[in-house]
Amino acid sequence: MIKASIIGANGYTGLELMNILSAHKDAAVTHLVSVSNAGTPVTDIYPSLVDYRDKCFETLDIDKISDGSDVIFSCLPHSASAEICSAFFNRGKKIIDLSADFRYKSLDVYEKTYKVTHPDKELLNKAVYGLPELYRKKISSSSIVGNPGCYTTSSILPVYPLLKEAVVDADDIIIDAKSGTSGAGRKAEISGLFAEVNENFKAYSVAVHRHTSEIEQELSIAAGKDVAVSFTPHLLPINRGILSTIHLKLKKNRSADDIYDLYMKYYGTEPFVIISKDKLPSINSVKYGNYISIGFVVDKRLNRLIVISCLDNLIKGASGQAVQNMNIMFGIEETEGLKFQPRHI
Amino acid sequence: MIKASIIGANGYTGLELMNILSAHKDAAVTHLVSVSNAGTPVTDIYPSLVDYRDKCFETLDIDKISDGSDVIFSCLPHSASAEICSAFFNRGKKIIDLSADFRYKSLDVYEKTYKVTHPDKELLNKAVYGLPELYRKKISSSSIVGNPGCYTTSSILPVYPLLKEAVVDADDIIIDAKSGTSGAGRKAEISGLFAEVNENFKAYSVAVHRHTSEIEQELSIAAGKDVAVSFTPHLLPINRGILSTIHLKLKKNRSADDIYDLYMKYYGTEPFVIISKDKLPSINSVKYGNYISIGFVVDKRLNRLIVISCLDNLIKGASGQAVQNMNIMFGIEETEGLKFQPRHI
Amino acid sequence: MIKASIIGANGYTGLELMNILSAHKDAAVTHLVSVSNAGTPVTDIYPSLVDYRDKCFETLDIDKISDGSDVIFSCLPHSASAEICSAFFNRGKKIIDLSADFRYKSLDVYEKTYKVTHPDKELLNKAVYGLPELYRKKISSSSIVGNPGCYTTSSILPVYPLLKEAVVDADDIIIDAKSGTSGAGRKAEISGLFAEVNENFKAYSVAVHRHTSEIEQELSIAAGKDVAVSFTPHLLPINRGILSTIHLKLKKNRSADDIYDLYMKYYGTEPFVIISKDKLPSINSVKYGNYISIGFVVDKRLNRLIVISCLDNLIKGASGQAVQNMNIMFGIEETEGLKFQPRHI
Amino acid sequence: MIKASIIGANGYTGLELMNILSAHKDAAVTHLVSVSNAGTPVTDIYPSLVDYRDKCFETLDIDKISDGSDVIFSCLPHSASAEICSAFFNRGKKIIDLSADFRYKSLDVYEKTYKVTHPDKELLNKAVYGLPELYRKKISSSSIVGNPGCYTTSSILPVYPLLKEAVVDADDIIIDAKSGTSGAGRKAEISGLFAEVNENFKAYSVAVHRHTSEIEQELSIAAGKDVAVSFTPHLLPINRGILSTIHLKLKKNRSADDIYDLYMKYYGTEPFVIISKDKLPSINSVKYGNYISIGFVVDKRLNRLIVISCLDNLIKGASGQAVQNMNIMFGIEETEGLKFQPRHI
Repeated sequence: MIKASIIGANGYTGLELMNILSAHKDAAVTHLVSVSNAGTPVTDIYPSLVDYRDKCFETLDIDKISDGSDVIFSCLPHSASAEICSAFFNRGKKIIDLSADFRYKSLDVYEKTYKVTHPDKELLNKAVYGLPELYRKKISSSSIVGNPGCYTTSSILPVYPLLKEAVVDADDIIIDAKSGTSGAGRKAEISGLFAEVNENFKAYSVAVHRHTSEIEQELSIAAGKDVAVSFTPHLLPINRGILSTIHLKLKKNRSADDIYDLYMKYYGTEPFVIISKDKLPSINSVKYGNYISIGFVVDKRLNRLIVISCLDNLIKGASGQAVQNMNIMFGIEETEGLKFQPRHI
Repeated sequence: MIKASIIGANGYTGLELMNILSAHKDAAVTHLVSVSNAGTPVTDIYPSLVDYRDKCFETLDIDKISDGSDVIFSCLPHSASAEICSAFFNRGKKIIDLSADFRYKSLDVYEKTYKVTHPDKELLNKAVYGLPELYRKKISSSSIVGNPGCYTTSSILPVYPLLKEAVVDADDIIIDAKSGTSGAGRKAEISGLFAEVNENFKAYSVAVHRHTSEIEQELSIAAGKDVAVSFTPHLLPINRGILSTIHLKLKKNRSADDIYDLYMKYYGTEPFVIISKDKLPSINSVKYGNYISIGFVVDKRLNRLIVISCLDNLIKGASGQAVQNMNIMFGIEETEGLKFQPRHI
Repeated sequence: MIKASIIGANGYTGLELMNILSAHKDAAVTHLVSVSNAGTPVTDIYPSLVDYRDKCFETLDIDKISDGSDVIFSCLPHSASAEICSAFFNRGKKIIDLSADFRYKSLDVYEKTYKVTHPDKELLNKAVYGLPELYRKKISSSSIVGNPGCYTTSSILPVYPLLKEAVVDADDIIIDAKSGTSGAGRKAEISGLFAEVNENFKAYSVAVHRHTSEIEQELSIAAGKDVAVSFTPHLLPINRGILSTIHLKLKKNRSADDIYDLYMKYYGTEPFVIISKDKLPSINSVKYGNYISIGFVVDKRLNRLIVISCLDNLIKGASGQAVQNMNIMFGIEETEGLKFQPRHI
Repeated sequence: MIKASIIGANGYTGLELMNILSAHKDAAVTHLVSVSNAGTPVTDIYPSLVDYRDKCFETLDIDKISDGSDVIFSCLPHSASAEICSAFFNRGKKIIDLSADFRYKSLDVYEKTYKVTHPDKELLNKAVYGLPELYRKKISSSSIVGNPGCYTTSSILPVYPLLKEAVVDADDIIIDAKSGTSGAGRKAEISGLFAEVNENFKAYSVAVHRHTSEIEQELSIAAGKDVAVSFTPHLLPINRGILSTIHLKLKKNRSADDIYDLYMKYYGTEPFVIISKDKLPSINSVKYGNYISIGFVVDKRLNRLIVISCLDNLIKGASGQAVQNMNIMFGIEETEGLKFQPRHI
């Protein structure tokens, strides 16, 4: 039984980790750290977590938690997370960090994007980018994984094969992404109030969102050259889910069959990637599941390709993917604990 | 032209006052006070208020504001409100207070309910309860009005005639009320976040909600004896609106026609009360309007009467009623600025 | 492996059955009947059901389906359901009917309530009311179960012990219930459109809702005499969940501890009943789970008891309870396939 | 007083016309035609329309309605609308058609887009495209106006000046648009049910939406050459509002000031166009108002321009614009009846 502890467990990614891990056959949750809620029963904050009726949030006692853990999931904010991850890594624990701290291959890009000094540059070099569909093998032999962002997973997976095979123009990638509100976390802010979000819709961080550099890192690898993308995020009045509409230019004429075959070549055996030829995915085809669903339209009139990808930002975009990474790191079945279906309603 | 100023203008009742007053023929907004947002353009916080493009929120300069105002709308929290209202009243201004500070006939009930000492007991004695359908005449000659709460308006108006005419049992009044989230105000709290309210529904303050004593004050007057009500509020995942389901016992058999006629006797000429005989009101028959809509079902099997009342908590339950009171206090047409229809969608 | 088939599988209760059964260790779905969608792949209607990628909806071929089934879940409308259930019962299949057709002990009450002639009165006499907390033993030896309605489960379980122990007045039971929209099913009706339901809230079928007679049947058994309840349902703008606010009169003074102990006596060992002493349940403590959560407030001032019960109308209020009944009928662990936690967001 | 009648009044654009016209000083509603609801009181369908308490929907009696009308608003579906408009036009009435039937300059484009034969080609030639900001003068002397679509208004107005001044590449226009559900009308369809739309988001009609040709017609005029746009619509789980994210390539470097000045040159004096330099509009800055709000970000890194436009699809995108056209056609103040502010919540 893998002993798993969660640091920063009181937020929404912690909530999802607790939910997924409670049904995982080979893992058990040992410590749930939330400094601000230490001593509080988990079900005081999340009554839905009935399997945690006997557990309380704890303070951050690194030695104690190390003793009782094989793997640490960090749900802390960037910068704060790296410091804590360092401490656990040095005690021989496997680390899955849900912050941005271990996602970057370039220290410079990380520090420019997040405007901080990285607390442990050496560890950054050891980390693997936790996108199983691209880095499964490296993840399996790594002890530290930087779990990808929600927007980035929904952007990289659909575009990667198209650039790798030079099917679309690498200089003309427009990602128009829409996310549910849980992506903003569980923070007391007026802008997050129900009456401010409900019956509303808006773009934000246009041309400056931090996930852009993370997307560009991976798409540049795919293209074999520096790629810059135009990324525009929006806030949807729904609890969970991301839909990314990706506007691409075909380099030459391609049929829908061509595109479908290409995707199947890359993802045909992937357990959590769904490729559709004739239908477009919607949020309700993926919410509450660990799947990314990809559909597309070839616009022959304009020689364009419009790709739609959907995932649940808290699951395939965060905690589900983190458990998928854990499974790979510990050599157990990759889909363990993640086979639940999405919920249409 | 009535010069109107709003204190605590940055919240949702302030927003609605600004909206209503901008279309009012006989009133003009002069000062908008928000200490926490002083200096900020109104449209930075509420871009929808296009008529206020040239206005900023101001600090609370009582002399300056007095000079430029005939009437003060206070949207401050209870206790804080009374102090400010006092200062303006003493400078000869008419006062419409949207807090609870001037709603009570009994100092004792107020102080027990709100657990504070009233800052100006003398002024409390001068205040009139601002429910035009019951106190129109007193309001017209008053200089200080305690504007009723949203739950209370939706509770008192439908029950008052039934008690006054002794049609229902005064000892068995159950009010099961459901309110949209704007009733909780514009405060940064985790419990108010979109993801916490959306797809959720809950009861709160069961048997201890403060509006209970305000409801009982008026219903006791109607019954001619002390009345205690069982009041249970709930939080709806909608922006605005209150629906109160009022469970009553008929003292003797009554037909739907009897009940309808009774309501028409009291409210048949009221501009903002809608009585239906065959249909029940819903939130979308009143939202964005200044109306209270009342419907009912006579349950012959159980000899019970179920009354449903609906209103928009920010308008007939707050700012619209406040403007209605202003119109009465200044002797202008009571419906001026309030004739806009509710919005079905 | 139990072979389970679903008749009327294309609606929302069918959707939930498909979802639950796909993760059930001891059951496998064999036939999915939907006459109107026969031949259509399941994932064309519900792309979320990824485990059903190879399955299509079928026509109703009773012999063929009988051959491949041990148990039949009927999700058909009342009256139509009984006929089909009859046919399968006569072929030796176990039946779990989600319609009202086998819920009644009195043919007369059924026929008056649903205004139809029952198609198989004999079978009605054999049926057991499928509320495991009350009828577990009978269910275990029955071949036909009438699965309770969603409102009824949320009403009966919290009131039953209070009447059984004569703690509350049996002549004064008011149930003010609020349901999410999935309770209305998947029917093309203008009243169900997003813009008609969203930002709206309303009461409906006041004093005449069909579930009233079902509630009264069971509460009369509890009280040992005929009980009539005042039942008022409302439509919530959420996908799933029911919250019932039950207004009761205490026969004598009782403390919160008394009430808690009473509930624990009845439900303390129940796997899917949660009793809270200090907190009230909300929809987000039960949605997507098979639990009913019960909380209460003793109002000493009025000597009243306000009970709040919450459940997911599609799960504990329909398909989860149906699977719970299947587990009991087949002698397997009652919680199999139902241990998933509710979802806070 | 202008006598106005509405044909197809029972849908959502009819609802909004009824709402706006009831507060219009110079117009009065005379006939409300709804064949399917003839004889039904307006408030049976829309209880919110309290000003219409004495009115019923009527059958389509062209002579009678002509006698009592100066202007006809047609809210009928395309093709059906043109026939009726013809009949009224031939009786000397002014026509404002909210369908697509009179929006096109090219018969061929209309017939290819809508796959019908136009019922009155001559009248099509006489019609003016009802976008006041572009065609105010022509509208003022016209008797038949084709009122623009909701997506088209939100697309044309922000892009028109940029093409006219050759600031952006005319061959690379991507419009990623998101609309509230009222745009789909008031039709009983499963896809429009609350549970299907709520907590969901999807793209639809990708690369084939009918509004594309209407957008291209106007943008081609702006560019002085044939322009093809990539248009991708999405369905938002909100009642009303459209936000269009328009992805453009700058032909040469431009500052935010340049773009702002350009917009102000075209729209600086427009009563219903709001241009923002530093802020992006959101749905809650325009909903329930007749404004289009335009903001933008210059992405220097990619030499791109991202423009965000917002409007209320039922008002500036339909019925508000229709009344604006009526005002122009009748020579009264263009803003009459339309000065109400949007609603933040």
